[in-house]
Amino acid sequence: MRIALDAMGSDRAPATEVEGAVGALLSLDGDFELVLVGDRERIELELGRFPEAPRDRIEIVHAPQRIQMGESPAQAIRRKPDSSIVVGLNLHKQGEVDAFISAGSTGAVMAGSLLLLGPIPGVDRPPVGTLLPRRRGRILLLDAGANVDTRPHQLVQFAHLGTIYARDLMGIEEPRIGLLNIGEEPEKGDERAVEAHRLLAASPSLRFVGNIEGRDIIEDKCDVVVCDGFVGNVLLKFYESVAGFIVGLLRTEAEAANAPLDLSGIFQALDYTEYGGAPLLGVNGVTIICHGGSPPRAVRNAIRVAVQAVETQMVDHIQSRLAAAQSNS
Amino acid sequence: MRIALDAMGSDRAPATEVEGAVGALLSLDGDFELVLVGDRERIELELGRFPEAPRDRIEIVHAPQRIQMGESPAQAIRRKPDSSIVVGLNLHKQGEVDAFISAGSTGAVMAGSLLLLGPIPGVDRPPVGTLLPRRRGRILLLDAGANVDTRPHQLVQFAHLGTIYARDLMGIEEPRIGLLNIGEEPEKGDERAVEAHRLLAASPSLRFVGNIEGRDIIEDKCDVVVCDGFVGNVLLKFYESVAGFIVGLLRTEAEAANAPLDLSGIFQALDYTEYGGAPLLGVNGVTIICHGGSPPRAVRNAIRVAVQAVETQMVDHIQSRLAAAQSNS
Repeated sequence: MRIALDAMGSDRAPATEVEGAVGALLSLDGDFELVLVGDRERIELELGRFPEAPRDRIEIVHAPQRIQMGESPAQAIRRKPDSSIVVGLNLHKQGEVDAFISAGSTGAVMAGSLLLLGPIPGVDRPPVGTLLPRRRGRILLLDAGANVDTRPHQLVQFAHLGTIYARDLMGIEEPRIGLLNIGEEPEKGDERAVEAHRLLAASPSLRFVGNIEGRDIIEDKCDVVVCDGFVGNVLLKFYESVAGFIVGLLRTEAEAANAPLDLSGIFQALDYTEYGGAPLLGVNGVTIICHGGSPPRAVRNAIRVAVQAVETQMVDHIQSRLAAAQSNS
Repeated sequence: MRIALDAMGSDRAPATEVEGAVGALLSLDGDFELVLVGDRERIELELGRFPEAPRDRIEIVHAPQRIQMGESPAQAIRRKPDSSIVVGLNLHKQGEVDAFISAGSTGAVMAGSLLLLGPIPGVDRPPVGTLLPRRRGRILLLDAGANVDTRPHQLVQFAHLGTIYARDLMGIEEPRIGLLNIGEEPEKGDERAVEAHRLLAASPSLRFVGNIEGRDIIEDKCDVVVCDGFVGNVLLKFYESVAGFIVGLLRTEAEAANAPLDLSGIFQALDYTEYGGAPLLGVNGVTIICHGGSPPRAVRNAIRVAVQAVETQMVDHIQSRLAAAQSNS
């Protein structure tokens, strides 16, 4: 198995990517090689810091261009054919690699994946999934911000995608699907939610457990929660910030009380890097998107997720499930 | 000034309401009397527990019916004319009292306020405001769940209502208004957000500071954030639950480290009861909605908010502002 890693994506590229890549090669199980895509010279320089790196499992593919955060995603993909994102995705499209990982511009990675890999039939608009920490384990939130103004039937597509992800990557045999809403009853919510509830309840191949309110997200009521990308994105960013806020309040309190507290356990429980990147689901390939501020550990974990997605044949499973869902509707 | 308090609303009614009422009369500044609306006998019984209560400032108005949480709000208002909610709102409508407070069914209080007090001209759908704790002070979130499928111009109405609330009740002379969105740029977001941004930016009487992302809510970037009630409600309920979750994680950590920690400061910072009820803004009157699980302290604080709203003539200010906004558009 070969996995392409955009070495020029993160805020501290390529140092972060190279360190994460070496860490993954040395620590993760699985028979895989990594293709580092980006500025060859700078990558070689970083690699020089790791004499222990298994060079026979690392290939460098030169990509001189870099897509910046501010650029229009679709334009950047067309105008920069030698960017690390376009080169990496083309390697995937041509079957040279089995997955692509990037901490670069989320919009450009999404636009490039759609344009170069294409959507899986039955998926109108591929969503981004994010794993949120909760009381027990994690919950998969779909869509975390790739699509707004979604239509009810698209939330049903998200539910099918989430079912496969939870089964293949989280090991949950029959994942419970919830619909993010503002009340428990089927008639609650806006027009989209009411219709999506009806469609989800009428899908026998989904284990739909009903509406999930804001307060239920951190409870163990479902494994996958589907929503429009607007509310999903607001929620995700709010969670990231509020966790830091509350931990900060407590740290102040602990210092005032002269009760020095080891907060590492908390941070681990709330740390998104623990799970690495967010998969773009519903494209013809494995694309993993990482936070621009990802540390090496997040890159390593994203590689782990990619290896697992390839090993479990997640994309094949998504294709057959969507084909079945389409022929049943 | 006279304020009607639904004595039968909360989960522990009328004990909670009576205790909160007595506490308010004894501790709050301001020349006000309270009208307790509900089952006269049960209210008298509870009042008997407080010999210190200033009985000359308390009146009881008997209301034998009670609207339950599960009832259809609009139907319940029509079918139970002798319920504490309908009797209390009618007192307000007839000018017998200057404000109405209830911890009963939120839907019924909203439906009753709209039906009996009526909306202020220029307000299509009155929103509920909630004050969320953040790093410094609080932020007013509008709408916290009264309205879904709102239209862009209705978010502008929310911005005017929030401006008056923040000025009269929070003492902020020129409140900064933010639009909840998934990116900073004006063109980001769903169709509603893009159009609302355009309308807000074109309103000279509003101090519009632009889009506010999920992560900005707890920062000091604006005083009022407007949004559709769907995302507002999800966010509010999520915040309430996640605060408890993270504090719980920390408590476990502190116990394991044998570092007993006084968490009362945190709870105070995060405690919604500190600010009491949520105002229903844009009706012809002062209606304050409390959480069903409110403790006496929340009731006392809701009374404080009501006194302040009456003293500052919040409703008059809303009426003139909305009239001006309408004649300018």
